[in-house]
Amino acid sequence: MIIDGKAISERIKFSLREEISPPEADQPLAGKKKIRLAVIKVGNNPVTGKYLEVKRKFAEQIGVDVRIYEVPKDISNNKLREKISDVVHIPENTGVIIQLPLPEGINMQYILDAITPEKDPDVLSSKGWGKFATGKSKILPPVVGAVKMIFDENKIEIKGKNIIVVGAGRLVGKPVAAWLINEGATLSVIDENTLNPSNYTLDADIIISGVGKPKIIKPDMVKDGIIAIDCGTSESSGQVTGDIDPAIAEKASLFAPVPGGVGPITIAILFKNLIELAK
Amino acid sequence: MIIDGKAISERIKFSLREEISPPEADQPLAGKKKIRLAVIKVGNNPVTGKYLEVKRKFAEQIGVDVRIYEVPKDISNNKLREKISDVVHIPENTGVIIQLPLPEGINMQYILDAITPEKDPDVLSSKGWGKFATGKSKILPPVVGAVKMIFDENKIEIKGKNIIVVGAGRLVGKPVAAWLINEGATLSVIDENTLNPSNYTLDADIIISGVGKPKIIKPDMVKDGIIAIDCGTSESSGQVTGDIDPAIAEKASLFAPVPGGVGPITIAILFKNLIELAK
Repeated sequence: MIIDGKAISERIKFSLREEISPPEADQPLAGKKKIRLAVIKVGNNPVTGKYLEVKRKFAEQIGVDVRIYEVPKDISNNKLREKISDVVHIPENTGVIIQLPLPEGINMQYILDAITPEKDPDVLSSKGWGKFATGKSKILPPVVGAVKMIFDENKIEIKGKNIIVVGAGRLVGKPVAAWLINEGATLSVIDENTLNPSNYTLDADIIISGVGKPKIIKPDMVKDGIIAIDCGTSESSGQVTGDIDPAIAEKASLFAPVPGGVGPITIAILFKNLIELAK
Repeated sequence: MIIDGKAISERIKFSLREEISPPEADQPLAGKKKIRLAVIKVGNNPVTGKYLEVKRKFAEQIGVDVRIYEVPKDISNNKLREKISDVVHIPENTGVIIQLPLPEGINMQYILDAITPEKDPDVLSSKGWGKFATGKSKILPPVVGAVKMIFDENKIEIKGKNIIVVGAGRLVGKPVAAWLINEGATLSVIDENTLNPSNYTLDADIIISGVGKPKIIKPDMVKDGIIAIDCGTSESSGQVTGDIDPAIAEKASLFAPVPGGVGPITIAILFKNLIELAK
C-alpha cells in the first residue's frame, strides 16, 4: 500500500477550511480576527522559495493570510533575531515560521528561539521542544504529526514493534525519536557512524528515514512486509528524491514515498497547528 | 573493572570545594555571596529523606548552604506551584530542586516547571529540558553528567558502538537517550513492551539501565566484555538494589553497579551544576 500524502493533505485542508471559514456566520470561529502565518525568508534560495509557494497556496485555500518578511542573506545573527522578535510581537501574526534551510553562518537554534512557544507552529524553538518532549504541548512538530497520522489512519500499533529511525537530525530524526520514546516504542536510532546498518534494518518492522541522501535505503536491507516511511528529501539530477529506494514498494506492506507521502501531510499539519495556536 | 562512584564523587567534591571555598581570599569566587541550594520536600517519605541527607552532607563539605522547605503532602497542585515560584524568586537561593518522588496526585511536570532554567540544577523543567535537548544548555541532567564522566574517564568512544538504553523514564532513560542521540550514537531504547529484549541486549556493546526493578538484566543477556551502567534503583528486602545483576561483573569489561556507581557521581554533578548556575 502506497500512502497518498496529497489526498490526506486535501482531506485535512477541507476540514481546516470548514473550521475557520465556515459557510454559516454563526459558526464558532466566525467573526474572529483572521488567522495569519508570518514567514521569515532569509535570502533568496530557490528551494525554500518553492516550499514557500506550496504553503502560501495551502493557506489561501483555507482562508489563512500569509505575510512574508524578506530579509537579506548577509544579515547578522543578532539583527535577524531582533527582526524575528519584532515579527513575533505583531498581534496580527498568529504564528511565525522561519523558512529553512538558513544561509550558512546563521546560528539556527539561536534564531529559532526568538519565536515564543505560543506562536511556534513548527515547534522548533527550544521552549517549544521542551514542552513537546515533556508531553506538555498541544501540538506536535509537523513531521511527527504527519507520521502519527499515517500510523493512526492505518491502525499501526507501535508498541512491541521494532522501529528504526535513520538519521538523528534536528528536523526529522530527533523529534520522531523523542515522540516514539514518549509513546513507549522500542526504537533504534542509526546514522552514518553505525557499523553494519543492515543488522538493524533487516530486523525492523517499521523504518522511518530522515537523512536527506538519495536512495540510501535499498530493498535488500529490509524484510518483507516492512512499513517504510520516508521523511528524507534531497535533489538528485534535478528531481526531488527520498532516502528510500521506491523499489521497496514491492516488499513493503505500507510505504510513504518521497515525493507525495509525508511532505504534503506535514504542510497540512503546520496549518492545523497554527489554528490550534489561534484558539 | 568496577566503577567506584564514591571515589569519583569525592574527587569532584574536592575540586568543587577548592573552587568555591578556596583557602586564599583572592581566589576568583571569594567574597561573593554564598551559594545556596533550596530543596522542596513534599510530605515525609523516608526514602526521599535519606537521599536528602546525602545531599545535605555533600553541600556542607564543599561550603554550600542548603535550605529545606517542607510542604505538607496533601498540598494542592496550584498551591505547591505557587510555593515553588516563591522559593525560586528568593535571591539567596542559587538553585532549587524538588525532592522526588512526589506524593501521588501531584502533577510532576507542572510542578517542576515552576523552576526557571537559571535555577534548575536538576535540568527537570521543560524549558531546561528544551535547552539541553537542543544543545543550548551549559549543564547536563545529573544522571547524564554522571554517565558522561564515566565514559570520559575510561575513554569510552560512543560512536560506532551499539548502545542499549533500558527503560524510557523521565529521570534516566529519556535524558540519557536524548543525550546519546545528540552525540551521534547508535542506540536502541527498549522497555517492558519490547518482545525478546535479549535480541537487543545480546548485541549490545554498552547497556545503560534505568528501570528501577531489581536485577532484571542477567549475565546471560549480554555478551562478554559488555560495558554495563546501572542507573536503576529499587528496594529489595530492605536493600537498595539495581537493575543489573551484580554477577554481570564476571562478563563486563566495565560495570557501574547500584549502589556505589552512578548514584554518588550524580549527586556530585548536581552540585557542579549548581556552581555553574551561580557563575
